[in-house]
Amino acid sequence: MTNPFPDVRGVGFAARASLADACRWIDGATAPLPAEPVPAADALGRVLAEAVTAPADRPTGPRAARDGLAVRAEETLGASAYNPIPLTPNSALPVSAGDSMPDGADAVLPVGSATLCGGIVEVVDPIAPGDGVERPGDRWRAGTTVIDAGRRLGAAELGLLAALGVTVVAAAARPRVRLLLAGGPRCGAESLGAPLAALAARDGGAVESLAGPLPADRDALAAAFEAPGADLIVCAGRTGVGVDDVAPLALANAGRLDLHGLALRPGESAGLGVVDGVPVILLPGEPLAALTVWDLLAGRALRRLAALPPASPYPTLRARTARKLVSDAGTAELYRVRLTGDGSVEPVASAAVPGLAAAVRSDGFVLIPAESEGYPPGAEVTVHLTGATLRPKWDGRG
Amino acid sequence: MTNPFPDVRGVGFAARASLADACRWIDGATAPLPAEPVPAADALGRVLAEAVTAPADRPTGPRAARDGLAVRAEETLGASAYNPIPLTPNSALPVSAGDSMPDGADAVLPVGSATLCGGIVEVVDPIAPGDGVERPGDRWRAGTTVIDAGRRLGAAELGLLAALGVTVVAAAARPRVRLLLAGGPRCGAESLGAPLAALAARDGGAVESLAGPLPADRDALAAAFEAPGADLIVCAGRTGVGVDDVAPLALANAGRLDLHGLALRPGESAGLGVVDGVPVILLPGEPLAALTVWDLLAGRALRRLAALPPASPYPTLRARTARKLVSDAGTAELYRVRLTGDGSVEPVASAAVPGLAAAVRSDGFVLIPAESEGYPPGAEVTVHLTGATLRPKWDGRG
Repeated sequence: MTNPFPDVRGVGFAARASLADACRWIDGATAPLPAEPVPAADALGRVLAEAVTAPADRPTGPRAARDGLAVRAEETLGASAYNPIPLTPNSALPVSAGDSMPDGADAVLPVGSATLCGGIVEVVDPIAPGDGVERPGDRWRAGTTVIDAGRRLGAAELGLLAALGVTVVAAAARPRVRLLLAGGPRCGAESLGAPLAALAARDGGAVESLAGPLPADRDALAAAFEAPGADLIVCAGRTGVGVDDVAPLALANAGRLDLHGLALRPGESAGLGVVDGVPVILLPGEPLAALTVWDLLAGRALRRLAALPPASPYPTLRARTARKLVSDAGTAELYRVRLTGDGSVEPVASAAVPGLAAAVRSDGFVLIPAESEGYPPGAEVTVHLTGATLRPKWDGRG
Repeated sequence: MTNPFPDVRGVGFAARASLADACRWIDGATAPLPAEPVPAADALGRVLAEAVTAPADRPTGPRAARDGLAVRAEETLGASAYNPIPLTPNSALPVSAGDSMPDGADAVLPVGSATLCGGIVEVVDPIAPGDGVERPGDRWRAGTTVIDAGRRLGAAELGLLAALGVTVVAAAARPRVRLLLAGGPRCGAESLGAPLAALAARDGGAVESLAGPLPADRDALAAAFEAPGADLIVCAGRTGVGVDDVAPLALANAGRLDLHGLALRPGESAGLGVVDGVPVILLPGEPLAALTVWDLLAGRALRRLAALPPASPYPTLRARTARKLVSDAGTAELYRVRLTGDGSVEPVASAAVPGLAAAVRSDGFVLIPAESEGYPPGAEVTVHLTGATLRPKWDGRG
């Protein structure tokens, strides 16, 4: 295969693709993986590929819908405070919500509608047949859909599966992610192992392998791209215009380099390509730029493969800028920002000066699109909360 | 110890505490656990109990801040397009961002400021000493705080710890949570094992043990409350007004039952108490009521012990009600709601008819405070997004 991109090392990027183009590339290169059977007990966080239907009517037989006394409704006809009707212990049995109904009983008197008087239960309110009773199939009928396809399984879903007696579900397969850290010990990528593994898990993937730091060797990197077994390959480092930046060349050698150089700050040296049908995302070696490109592109690819919503996984809020955010027209810029006391946001550092230290002092980020030259003070912007909602106060209050 | 509450079985609650009172009880009964050392590699999601400081200046020596050519700045004095200055290969060395600076070099010419002409590098722009170079301590000085106490460690924090060479951090201890499922196979609590374990992990806990379904036996339950080893005990089931509802009595026997009966729907049979200094939360056996009381009270207790923000862990949004939400004044009611196409919310089921099937068809919940009798159509409410932001489309688009 030939590389449509000239070698940018020592030369610089002649052109940069837009972030929107890169997202479109991701969307074209990825689709949800086929479904696989997963034990319900291990399915937390998985996405249902097929709807779960009720295997049987629930409840299977009549059961108490509340705590109270199971009675024959006809024996309570005419009861009132002026005409309490005594019931024998045999025909007024205490039940808890969920208990099977005793034989012959067809209603559950709520606590308070009967009084205990000398060992005899006295009913002061009549009750209609079926009152306080769940009938077979009231919750769901056999065959009806109880959890829709596409639902990510959380606590409530696991509980419902257990209640249904469903032990195996058809879930979207968990994409196998190969993580490669390129570059020697002096570049930033060597510190990215744990962060990228955490992000891969968050976005629904399973780490197939994590290798590095790898030497800046084109053939070795190409071989790492070509090895079978991954659904997505993410390689951090050696993507820029330095002499050792062999990752784009290795990708072009192993398969196709479709895009190299992004109009995005930080993250301009990102690259996108395909090897043997597997999407390969090249992240910059600078750690914050790498995490930025993960969130915007690599994570998007993974979330699409995992059948998760592809857009930003962070909650957002609208806030006003406390200070000006400047941006070059034609380049998308991502500012790490901090929420101030009055609910506005201020940049922690310029998009042009990335560094994890900025990220860990921030509450989230603001992405300024390429069309914009930035925002004046007081402008309303969307903040992606990367850490704020999880940020506790250590004083034990909140 | 004596039980300040009369036995409510077969009688019903004489009074119900407010949700606000229950939250105050939780806040009074819990505080962050002491710190413990945790390997940085295992610290994802943990909360820093002590700030992390830089163990040394970073960088330790001068290094390239960008890809380019490392030069002696003085040799570029007077360079311009009309006066290109040739440099020998020895005094213009290619470097990548992050490389240590070669001996003698004090600036990094960016790609584009030099041209290659017949094997000789020609400089067309002068550069100042230090330009394109990070000096020792530029990122941080030894001893300066790089991650604040109270920060929950995410991907960026793990990367920064790795870059700093920090291998152990002081993190808030992970609370040990004992989960007890009370009630025989016919009540709902037996399906709560996986859901409660998932919620315990989400809220920063480690499951100490998970036992059940346990028989409705007061003494056995009391013994399970009294066994040492847990920082928080959560018991689901057998809390209501039915004859088998022995959990509150067991708690009163083992320690103190401080509160039983909540003005909350679903969830009215919840209870709160203490055994040997360990908070014990009683959840209703009905599964959706149990998950509701987890989110509002048990999860709050756990998040406080874990030094996480105690309030609702879900992202929220403001939306308008598509239909009326009715609520009894004096009772807080929690409606499971679905987002409609036009951005408003409609109830999936009444708060009075709980059921996990409602939760799995919902996008979140709206909590109507006890002071309110509900909302008319079109009212603006806060929606806690329990599942919506994670809800994908299975058509592979989004």
